[in-house]
Amino acid sequence: MKFIIQRDRLVQSVQDVMKAVTSRTTIPILTGIKITAAAEGVTLTGSDSDISIESFIPKEEAGDEIVEIKQPGAIVLPAKFFSEIVKKLPTDSVEIEILGSLQTVIRSGKSEFNLNGLDAEEYPHLPQIEENNKFHIATDLLKAMIRQTHFAVSTSETRPILTGVNWKIENGDLSCIATDSHRLALRKAKIETEMNESYNIVIPGKSLNELSKIIDDTNELIDIVITENQILFKAKHLLFFSRLLEGNYPDTSRLIPSESKTEITVNTKEFLQAIDRASLLAREGRNNVVKFSTITDNIIEVSSNTPEVGKVVEEIQSQSIEGEELKISFSAKYMMDALKALEGTDIKVSFTGAMRPFVIRPLHDETILQLILPVRTY
Amino acid sequence: MKFIIQRDRLVQSVQDVMKAVTSRTTIPILTGIKITAAAEGVTLTGSDSDISIESFIPKEEAGDEIVEIKQPGAIVLPAKFFSEIVKKLPTDSVEIEILGSLQTVIRSGKSEFNLNGLDAEEYPHLPQIEENNKFHIATDLLKAMIRQTHFAVSTSETRPILTGVNWKIENGDLSCIATDSHRLALRKAKIETEMNESYNIVIPGKSLNELSKIIDDTNELIDIVITENQILFKAKHLLFFSRLLEGNYPDTSRLIPSESKTEITVNTKEFLQAIDRASLLAREGRNNVVKFSTITDNIIEVSSNTPEVGKVVEEIQSQSIEGEELKISFSAKYMMDALKALEGTDIKVSFTGAMRPFVIRPLHDETILQLILPVRTY
Repeated sequence: MKFIIQRDRLVQSVQDVMKAVTSRTTIPILTGIKITAAAEGVTLTGSDSDISIESFIPKEEAGDEIVEIKQPGAIVLPAKFFSEIVKKLPTDSVEIEILGSLQTVIRSGKSEFNLNGLDAEEYPHLPQIEENNKFHIATDLLKAMIRQTHFAVSTSETRPILTGVNWKIENGDLSCIATDSHRLALRKAKIETEMNESYNIVIPGKSLNELSKIIDDTNELIDIVITENQILFKAKHLLFFSRLLEGNYPDTSRLIPSESKTEITVNTKEFLQAIDRASLLAREGRNNVVKFSTITDNIIEVSSNTPEVGKVVEEIQSQSIEGEELKISFSAKYMMDALKALEGTDIKVSFTGAMRPFVIRPLHDETILQLILPVRTY
Repeated sequence: MKFIIQRDRLVQSVQDVMKAVTSRTTIPILTGIKITAAAEGVTLTGSDSDISIESFIPKEEAGDEIVEIKQPGAIVLPAKFFSEIVKKLPTDSVEIEILGSLQTVIRSGKSEFNLNGLDAEEYPHLPQIEENNKFHIATDLLKAMIRQTHFAVSTSETRPILTGVNWKIENGDLSCIATDSHRLALRKAKIETEMNESYNIVIPGKSLNELSKIIDDTNELIDIVITENQILFKAKHLLFFSRLLEGNYPDTSRLIPSESKTEITVNTKEFLQAIDRASLLAREGRNNVVKFSTITDNIIEVSSNTPEVGKVVEEIQSQSIEGEELKISFSAKYMMDALKALEGTDIKVSFTGAMRPFVIRPLHDETILQLILPVRTY
């Protein structure tokens, strides 16, 4: 194997596939990045066996030569060292060559690295995925859907299925749902597809988080293919595989109340900042709980009291308070997470009593909702 | 106590005095910030008993009213909460008032905090310092002198005196010296003074580091007063006290070789980057050592070899190599620290053999030098 490549393109691809590489693996070859040079270009692969990422650097693009392949071949290089090396190389072009069997030379200007490689034949094969049933979604929409749901997955392994995000596809609708059983995030969107099949899968929250870090915020379409135990995201020059979680995701539809007894409308940012301040003194406590109550004249009071430190009272002017008076307590962290996930300047919060879950929605957007279970303190 | 103050000025002063506050103190009142409101303005104080910082906010500045004092007084508020609160307050102006004995209210817009304060009478008094003997130095020069020396102090408590920077003042010259016994940093400057006394003191490295974070990069003069066991830095509206380390600092002057057998001149940045790359594979090893050797045609080779990972060879074109051929090994970290501390595009390295300390200087600047002890490997 021997090729000359533009350093910046190499650095970018290495950074992308590094998202799948972990040093905490029991399979030594997975601490490496697989590099394959073929006639069409260079392919880099990283994997932790849950997530696998393949990044392709074409021989040329828009008339520019990016890679000059001198001899095809493949090698696995230690990911940590290789990624640090390429970032710090002195010149814009890098030559990579296998000498002998696994000794790999990286040359750039007057800098020459010799790395001990591993046999590329021993690198695990990526899943073979039939692409009969695929659908498409705009990359920036996918990123938004991930951002608006994945934070609500459970971080505890008590119920492993809740560490994933539930994706349901039916009749051209995609619903993404995450819950840790104390709060729930739901986001829906239309997708482009010719398939009739419906799916109900659970994608590890960590996989979606890594994916959203490496896809660009563009409106280009990304292809998605689902198999029995894998999901594949195909962007330009990028393949992202994730295993799916096994097991049945709980039916969350009955959790979402269909009616409400108190509804408030309030500016998102003002509400978020008031909750943030009200929770400042409560963070010491075990659960970071704030109290919320409606007052006359459309005023909302958010407060917390930590006797050893002090207390806070925040008044927020809401656009409207409809229905019954209410006093309720909830986790300030969950509320702030939910408010940050919503778009739009104003939100509506619908309560059905102090002991029932309540729902937060943007004012004019039915595609997203956040649900929070209150805490018993009043 | 009651006053109304501009939030931004309060936030800035709180951030400054917070540099002296630690949560790991055995004296509970030192986890707080002391706030004193008097006719002239508001004074904030933070201290960990080694460092004390006092920041003054004047009643008015350049015709602008900054503080409106309604009633003088003093209180100590929990530093961690108070600093987080002021940063997040909603309006540009903040009212602070003591209710009853120690209950303190912080009001801003519709936000109201009640904090449990501590009695300001119990806050330790800052050292009383006679200002007979003081000298002045430009703030940006002081910052540079700290940056160029303090990194070389020892982090080990085996010889506590080496955790400080040795300041020697004599005949209008200030020398700052730091060494951890493996390397040494020295910086000299002229100071403005009318005093005849000479001083030889040791300032904790940590104190200088915190000081350099809060003083601005201006050419305004900063006053410095030295007493038996304290040093005081006086900038505009800011007092910074540090205790001095007790004990005698070793005489370092005889460590610095006066002659050399090999001298090289090289571009600072190119040399730094080559050392950085050469050390990439060596970082795994215990001591991060690189090999340096002179080759013909003014070429320098820097290399390292970690058999289990691989090896690196870097060639650097120097402006000149004078004197004997040389092979020497040294810590890449110490060399990079030294090169980052120097100013100027080119440096001169003067060696007196593979086993002797060597000296790095900017090409045309006699006020600064860095010294490194080699490592025995060749």
